[in-house]
Amino acid sequence: MMGYFRDNVERIAGYTPGFQPKATDVVKLNTNENPYPPSPEVMRALADIRAEQLRRYPDPLGNAFREAAAQVHGVAPENIMCCNGGDDLLSIAIRAFCDIGRPVAYPVPTYTLYPVLANLEDCPAIEIPFDEQFNLPAGLVKTGAALTIVCNPNAPTGTCVPVEELASLADELTGALLIDEAYVDFADRNGIELVREFDNVILLRSLSKGYSLAGLRFGYAIAHADLIAGLVKVKDSYNVDAVAIALATAAIRDQAYFKTNVAKVRADRAILTEGLKSLGFEVLDSSTNFVLATVGAKHFSPLRVGQIYEELARRDIYVRYFDVPGLDDKLRISVGTKQQNEKLLAALKEILG
Amino acid sequence: MMGYFRDNVERIAGYTPGFQPKATDVVKLNTNENPYPPSPEVMRALADIRAEQLRRYPDPLGNAFREAAAQVHGVAPENIMCCNGGDDLLSIAIRAFCDIGRPVAYPVPTYTLYPVLANLEDCPAIEIPFDEQFNLPAGLVKTGAALTIVCNPNAPTGTCVPVEELASLADELTGALLIDEAYVDFADRNGIELVREFDNVILLRSLSKGYSLAGLRFGYAIAHADLIAGLVKVKDSYNVDAVAIALATAAIRDQAYFKTNVAKVRADRAILTEGLKSLGFEVLDSSTNFVLATVGAKHFSPLRVGQIYEELARRDIYVRYFDVPGLDDKLRISVGTKQQNEKLLAALKEILG
Repeated sequence: MMGYFRDNVERIAGYTPGFQPKATDVVKLNTNENPYPPSPEVMRALADIRAEQLRRYPDPLGNAFREAAAQVHGVAPENIMCCNGGDDLLSIAIRAFCDIGRPVAYPVPTYTLYPVLANLEDCPAIEIPFDEQFNLPAGLVKTGAALTIVCNPNAPTGTCVPVEELASLADELTGALLIDEAYVDFADRNGIELVREFDNVILLRSLSKGYSLAGLRFGYAIAHADLIAGLVKVKDSYNVDAVAIALATAAIRDQAYFKTNVAKVRADRAILTEGLKSLGFEVLDSSTNFVLATVGAKHFSPLRVGQIYEELARRDIYVRYFDVPGLDDKLRISVGTKQQNEKLLAALKEILG
Repeated sequence: MMGYFRDNVERIAGYTPGFQPKATDVVKLNTNENPYPPSPEVMRALADIRAEQLRRYPDPLGNAFREAAAQVHGVAPENIMCCNGGDDLLSIAIRAFCDIGRPVAYPVPTYTLYPVLANLEDCPAIEIPFDEQFNLPAGLVKTGAALTIVCNPNAPTGTCVPVEELASLADELTGALLIDEAYVDFADRNGIELVREFDNVILLRSLSKGYSLAGLRFGYAIAHADLIAGLVKVKDSYNVDAVAIALATAAIRDQAYFKTNVAKVRADRAILTEGLKSLGFEVLDSSTNFVLATVGAKHFSPLRVGQIYEELARRDIYVRYFDVPGLDDKLRISVGTKQQNEKLLAALKEILG
């Protein structure tokens, strides 16, 4: 408490990212990284980086990436904005649409960065609880929020709401609708058709998960060109660097590798889900690269879930445990390689048995 | 005007970065890039990047860089915060300290991003004019601002105010003082001693200029550990990527290369300044890697300065021209290689003669 900061900055704790163990030989299933490496084309683009690209300022809009992404999604480059990770877009959107008199609304539980950003912007955060099946809450339509965020598929539940319901929501809202599709690469459907139909919809995409590039910090927005033009005014002039633009462009161009990678994760997700169920966990159907596993309420107390987490960590197996009401009987487990998933299941069997 | 954005976002034009010609064989003296390539150690670090570093999330705080920078500056790693370019720090600081009731203050003319960020944050911007010799305005002490920014050396004037005056300012201010030292690598002195003495001083440093890494987007803050801890709450969790951390760390470790590079630019700056003076320009003593050249008022109208700019551009020589009152009789020229500076001087001689 130095007294120099705004009160809401002094007050908050800030967002806590998942634990990043330094060792690389651990089973790391706690931050939803893709278990497979990025496309070989990315490594080729890396090898092609020249000193001159580092010396000069990057393209402020990352047009090479915009063009490649536009082609993949069947939109125009003017519908794309590059971001320094998906979090950059969330921060830009909150600052573009919200302030003390212009609330943000979102269903909960969800990505815990949203309230942190709302607090920094000093805008009211209207939190509407999901029902027990994680259906889109009807109350979202009537909040009057300047920005509504729906994480779809949702974190940390892994669940998905139908595109048709998001279309109705976009149609009825008077404000903007940001659909946080950071995990959508692992789902059956995505919201791209909504961008063509509605001028108030922003899709958030990330290269961290489906493209195995969490270390690169690259995300992007897809939206109506006028919406993109407004968001560009709020972003840092050079928010993505020359190396990131080159590597992200190489990654998104290699759709064949991307599709194979995603198919592997989805297949292993099904096996992991079955394995957890056979150990007595309740597991929601996941549309992401992680699963949310509930420890059967009859057998275990919240304290016990924390203990399971600790015992896994002692075996160098890292998963995510949120010690908050509603989530404290659950573990969020990223889908790893076949071998990693097997190690996790074996360790759980040992701990529980 | 879609009606979705906050009024101040709808209203503003946004910051306009300097023109980035696509061709690489031009004389590009318009955005203050370093004319020499980054250290060979940077290229070695680039070649050492592994797929695994791209796949996993980066270190949220970039501790490898913090440790290297701390050693260079004789401070602790806790006194350093990594940023996605210096602009990221400016945005973080304005959001950390300012709001509608907490103004930002700075002398003008200066970096034109400050008012853009103030407008986005909806905080009052108190602009105190420099005198004609660009001395620190006495009025800065009495603004009551939550954040005071002094760009030192200043852009676009290239001038420097003494560290002693900044010490007095830091001592008298009730708010935080951010000294934007993006160009300080080319000056005789810097403000590092102020961080040790005052808990309200933040130095902004950039690797874009002195380290020839404009394409990488890497800057950092140096400040009291408590101040850094507060700023960290406002930054994006993963604001710098794994590649940038590795390359920036390699760059700052190679102080020998850095010093040689800076010495070359300073030597060429002296020659360029003399050359411009001999063509009849008035040139302020520069502490940066650019010079501000005033076209003698007796001979030229503002229109004429725009024409000189255009005629240079027609010859593939790019400088910066700000078409605003107080600057419209001036050209801001980055110090290039010896050969580039000679080409510029020859072209100017031709145009003026």
